[in-house]
Amino acid sequence: MPSERPATRDRLLSAAATLFAERGFHSVSIREICKRAETSINMVHHYFGSKDGLLEAIFEQFGEHVFAVPMRLLDTPAKSRDDFESRIEMLFEATLDAYLANRDVALVVIGQQPDVPPLLAYTERLVDFLEQGKESGFVRKELDAEMISGAILGRLLQQVQFAPWIKRTYGTDISDPDYKKRWCAANLDLYLRGMLSVTEP
Amino acid sequence: MPSERPATRDRLLSAAATLFAERGFHSVSIREICKRAETSINMVHHYFGSKDGLLEAIFEQFGEHVFAVPMRLLDTPAKSRDDFESRIEMLFEATLDAYLANRDVALVVIGQQPDVPPLLAYTERLVDFLEQGKESGFVRKELDAEMISGAILGRLLQQVQFAPWIKRTYGTDISDPDYKKRWCAANLDLYLRGMLSVTEP
Repeated sequence: MPSERPATRDRLLSAAATLFAERGFHSVSIREICKRAETSINMVHHYFGSKDGLLEAIFEQFGEHVFAVPMRLLDTPAKSRDDFESRIEMLFEATLDAYLANRDVALVVIGQQPDVPPLLAYTERLVDFLEQGKESGFVRKELDAEMISGAILGRLLQQVQFAPWIKRTYGTDISDPDYKKRWCAANLDLYLRGMLSVTEP
Repeated sequence: MPSERPATRDRLLSAAATLFAERGFHSVSIREICKRAETSINMVHHYFGSKDGLLEAIFEQFGEHVFAVPMRLLDTPAKSRDDFESRIEMLFEATLDAYLANRDVALVVIGQQPDVPPLLAYTERLVDFLEQGKESGFVRKELDAEMISGAILGRLLQQVQFAPWIKRTYGTDISDPDYKKRWCAANLDLYLRGMLSVTEP
């Protein structure tokens, strides 16, 4: 059944994320969410208990969906300077893609600033990865790994947040493959150059 | 008259910025704004025409107050690599201080993503300053000045936006002088190292 309609619970999650992302959690009523999800108000109570419960479920969904792929890139320490560079590049693009694929949910997270344990776990893994790079000698000893992990992951989230403004101001945004390529290259160039130890004069 | 109460128009701007920052533009009524500002609804109509007019006035205030000091740092090209470093450091801290001093207004700007001509003018001046640094040889030729100007200014705005989350998660935030010092040093270390040409092996 390839064209089967998503289950009611998923329709509610998706409708709520879209509406919260557009207008903010406080401005959206359960009635509007149910109308968009084409279901009845009883179903919110059945699956989530309340509007707050629905919000919590959106945050859980974010944690489950977004960080699995990029976190796997950090499972083992980098073997060389080149390996370190490749993994940071892959991580940057995989995290950006995950945010873009879950854009509404990411916007709700930005708006509400909840505790997202998987995001913290991911940040901590990145800190460890940078510290391992220091021990191996290809990351500069002076680099503040905690602060810079936050800088990298924050930069990616911000690009998703400001896509509408960038589109209006510059006529393009991160959904355009050419812009995305240039944006990733420019930021990775800065970050890698800023992180890596000097090997050549 | 040192303890004079701010004028009605300023009280309205301040009350509206605080409420919009806390709960979003759409969730706040004119009535609530006037109650907080201790004035009557007529005054909103008198000074701003409407709630939308009040929002526009907040954006204008942001442009006027936030970018004057840091922009002056870019009036002339850097004379040397050291001068370039100093100016980027001063610009980083002056911009952060300006955002922090206008935190509510900054949060409303982040939430609504309006066109803010002074922010665009500031970004463009920073692009020019980086390009001048390239011509003088102390900024790397490969640096994408447009993208990196956005990265620097965005990073500062984001730190203000996520202060409540950072406070909850790490027990401190950018309003703490020690955290602020470490955060600025870590980011400037990365950016300057990422931007500057190599002068020593």
